Amino acid sequence: MSRVVSESLIKSQEHTRNYAQSLDDADPLRAFRERFVIDDELVYLDGNSLGRLPRATADRLAQVVTEQWGRRLIRGWDEGWLELPIEVGDRLGAAALGAAPGQTVVADSTTVCFYKLACAALDLRPGRNQIVTDYDNFPTDRYVLEGLARARDLELVFLRGDPCYGPIPGDVLNLVGGQTALVTFSHVAYRSAHIADMAQISEIAHAAGALTLWDLSHSAGSVPVQLDADGADLAVGCTYKYLNAGPGAPAFMYARADLQPQLSQPIWGWLGRRNPFEMDHGYDPATGVTALLSGTPPVLGLSAVDEGVRLVEEAGIDRIRAKAVALTEFAIALVDAHLADAGVTVASPRDAAHRGAHVALAHADAKRLCAALIDRGVIPDFRRPDVIRFGLSPLTTRFVDVWDGVETLRTLL
Amino acid sequence: MSRVVSESLIKSQEHTRNYAQSLDDADPLRAFRERFVIDDELVYLDGNSLGRLPRATADRLAQVVTEQWGRRLIRGWDEGWLELPIEVGDRLGAAALGAAPGQTVVADSTTVCFYKLACAALDLRPGRNQIVTDYDNFPTDRYVLEGLARARDLELVFLRGDPCYGPIPGDVLNLVGGQTALVTFSHVAYRSAHIADMAQISEIAHAAGALTLWDLSHSAGSVPVQLDADGADLAVGCTYKYLNAGPGAPAFMYARADLQPQLSQPIWGWLGRRNPFEMDHGYDPATGVTALLSGTPPVLGLSAVDEGVRLVEEAGIDRIRAKAVALTEFAIALVDAHLADAGVTVASPRDAAHRGAHVALAHADAKRLCAALIDRGVIPDFRRPDVIRFGLSPLTTRFVDVWDGVETLRTLL
Repeated sequence: MSRVVSESLIKSQEHTRNYAQSLDDADPLRAFRERFVIDDELVYLDGNSLGRLPRATADRLAQVVTEQWGRRLIRGWDEGWLELPIEVGDRLGAAALGAAPGQTVVADSTTVCFYKLACAALDLRPGRNQIVTDYDNFPTDRYVLEGLARARDLELVFLRGDPCYGPIPGDVLNLVGGQTALVTFSHVAYRSAHIADMAQISEIAHAAGALTLWDLSHSAGSVPVQLDADGADLAVGCTYKYLNAGPGAPAFMYARADLQPQLSQPIWGWLGRRNPFEMDHGYDPATGVTALLSGTPPVLGLSAVDEGVRLVEEAGIDRIRAKAVALTEFAIALVDAHLADAGVTVASPRDAAHRGAHVALAHADAKRLCAALIDRGVIPDFRRPDVIRFGLSPLTTRFVDVWDGVETLRTLL
Repeated sequence: MSRVVSESLIKSQEHTRNYAQSLDDADPLRAFRERFVIDDELVYLDGNSLGRLPRATADRLAQVVTEQWGRRLIRGWDEGWLELPIEVGDRLGAAALGAAPGQTVVADSTTVCFYKLACAALDLRPGRNQIVTDYDNFPTDRYVLEGLARARDLELVFLRGDPCYGPIPGDVLNLVGGQTALVTFSHVAYRSAHIADMAQISEIAHAAGALTLWDLSHSAGSVPVQLDADGADLAVGCTYKYLNAGPGAPAFMYARADLQPQLSQPIWGWLGRRNPFEMDHGYDPATGVTALLSGTPPVLGLSAVDEGVRLVEEAGIDRIRAKAVALTEFAIALVDAHLADAGVTVASPRDAAHRGAHVALAHADAKRLCAALIDRGVIPDFRRPDVIRFGLSPLTTRFVDVWDGVETLRTLL
């Protein structure tokens, strides 16, 4: 699909809104937009920060609140709530992460999940004193690692690559060694949208005897991930971006099956214990990924993740990916044609194979431009120092939205 | 009020449902029941496990979902979401915890909060190798401490008191010493409902140079807590019990103001950093309790806590407490009169001054009886090995519910 779009653009120079409309008309996923609450004139290009509200989620949450909580009360725990972390995790794993059942669980915030798995990994590599990560990795990941490095007297080794790109296997190879305990990157970089080569980096980490921990926040639900096939050890990710689970919805954790028996996360809570409601003495971890749980599952958020995952299942991650490629190709073609002269450069990989579902546009005046776009009903987001991100969430973003976004930016310049 | 109830009972032996009804008629909080979704014939005596749904919360959640998330999307963070953890925390502190502003924050699960503050406390007492807690403390607290003891090579010193009671200052005094880093108890014991003497235990802990961490899960919203006045250092608690915030709603943390500058919690996330959206390099903790935050705040759960706290503000914690005392006194009087011969004993403190808002009833056949009660539409809960808990949530439980619960149990026996 992307190839067709690019060639058409080059051939016809049809950079008109009508052309964008024709792409929407031909979009096999166009009906999914109606599955979301969209009753505004907003050009929303920030679904990579907070995804839109699925209609089914509004209904499900109302049902969970008034029927389940309101009427079934404490009995809800025996009527499905308790299984949500594992069940939703398994379905998410199958739909979007390339993870066989029994390896994915939904719980806590991304930050807390990242902390738990980073601790668990470091505990499996005693005596090694280095953690390798990207200098441009998402802030909360860097901060968690900084805290762990201080607490455990470890060295944080930063890969400093091209900020328009992300971690390159060759660069990773130069940094890892016999002292590396953990190699951790975002699969899709939050600024540039660069897709890291999970298979190669995993192989490099493993060859050095290190473990890998992937942050899938900007991948899950937009870029197919192959955790099992690519040899990932551990992963976490956010559900309120492309999985559309709502503000502050719980995150997910993945732990490779054959690693689980050795793994121990640091926050030993009752929901991670075998037979939690025995309330017995002595922590005896549950088997499998259940042991990654700590406290009481957040039922509202979990229900919203469940609905978000259903939409991905139904649309199919490959069709979602194809549309993401087409949307970002279209955006880049428009930017090149209309905005390059005004000093806007594409700060994302130009090869779609290496690019997730957002496009970073660099301009010296990005902050002011971003505010002006928002005033005009176009919502991207700004990332310091000079990036405007257009997040193109395939289930809700239209080609005309991309066209309107670029066109509005053009009039501002 | 409680005294009046007991004397009337003794005098008149009016153990009739009509008498219970007359107590409801005279209840100054009776109108609050209509503020909750109660459209069933259920005798719900488990508000101490999961509180009922406030009508305002159903409306608020619908509004947050469809209006805020659905229409305002990412702009919600600038329109109040980001402030919720601190604002709701301050109001909860004032309404129910005896905590001046700037010391309470809502975030994460109780288990994660307990872990964060336990770590922070232990870091402030390096070189000391003991943690003192109750052998009958709530399981998740014990498990977290067990995990920390293993990770840090510490000794977990258990107070083994009367299980119908809780930690007694004299017993605590015998256990603490120069090696005690942390003293941690539930304020109201989850089995017996015993209220610990926070002021005396804090004094004992401080005299030994230790810090205190209180679990307020079974207190918050039912028993007035005086964290500031009683010299507590740290506290956590649950919001889905007497604060009626829904299944898996986020918990709260309290850190005494003068301790905050020294305090560092272990999960360094972006929301705990100064200017999180600068996304800058290097973790630089925010000032005050904001530094206790880690990941993205769970907006749905926080909104529900907000509404739950509003009801406590409006009813007043002292009136709530007075009704809790009256309800538990009534329950005990009925049990003594009707169930003692059948082998049911009161496994909660008989002095209301030492008892929270639930009553533990011990019987050798408690598990089967509990299941039979549920079959008959009376919902208490069972706690191993032999306890039926009647949770009497003052804003929603009527005296006739207590009467019906005891009467149903009597017919079963």
